[in-house]
Amino acid sequence: MNGGNLFGDVPRALAEEQFTELLAAPNLRVERIVSTGQANPPGFWYDQDWAEWVVVLVGSAGLLIEGEAGLRVLGPGDYLHIPAHARHRVEWTDAAQPTVWLAVHHREGP
Amino acid sequence: MNGGNLFGDVPRALAEEQFTELLAAPNLRVERIVSTGQANPPGFWYDQDWAEWVVVLVGSAGLLIEGEAGLRVLGPGDYLHIPAHARHRVEWTDAAQPTVWLAVHHREGP
Repeated sequence: MNGGNLFGDVPRALAEEQFTELLAAPNLRVERIVSTGQANPPGFWYDQDWAEWVVVLVGSAGLLIEGEAGLRVLGPGDYLHIPAHARHRVEWTDAAQPTVWLAVHHREGP
Repeated sequence: MNGGNLFGDVPRALAEEQFTELLAAPNLRVERIVSTGQANPPGFWYDQDWAEWVVVLVGSAGLLIEGEAGLRVLGPGDYLHIPAHARHRVEWTDAAQPTVWLAVHHREGP
């Protein structure tokens, strides 16, 4: 039975965001993401084949969903379900502390 | 696009544990659980058809997995993957503060 701690070994500074796979199954992938101020480059959009349920546990981030006028600012506990192919981008992440995300990627459909 | 906050509206005292469904899909169910000192009654075991990836975010709990000699004590950030039909029970949850769990139930297999 595999386990661990989401808040263990959180790096304080990273050249790039850190993605750690916690669980992988045919239709499911759970990962921890740590950001330390990173953002997506101008013009970059995530366009994912799987849906993503995502929560910020520590820190904060500004997320832009294509077609929405304003940013969604996520702080501790804020979660969002992003359907497959709903284009989105991370405009900013907390520069003062690491941001710890938990992402549940899942293949939709029957 | 549905969202919310995991740490919002956490009750301080409950007659029974509170289960809140955050996402439901054919092979996936994400739920928040709030415990305020509850435990499973003597002799009760969970025996679930789906696997469960579970994390304690706030508070603490003692989990017994059938066949293991000792309790697994879970605190903030501690996660565990419980395969389908791995019998387990909650021996205790924090009596001094609410325990907030996030559970990702998923149907295994292709």
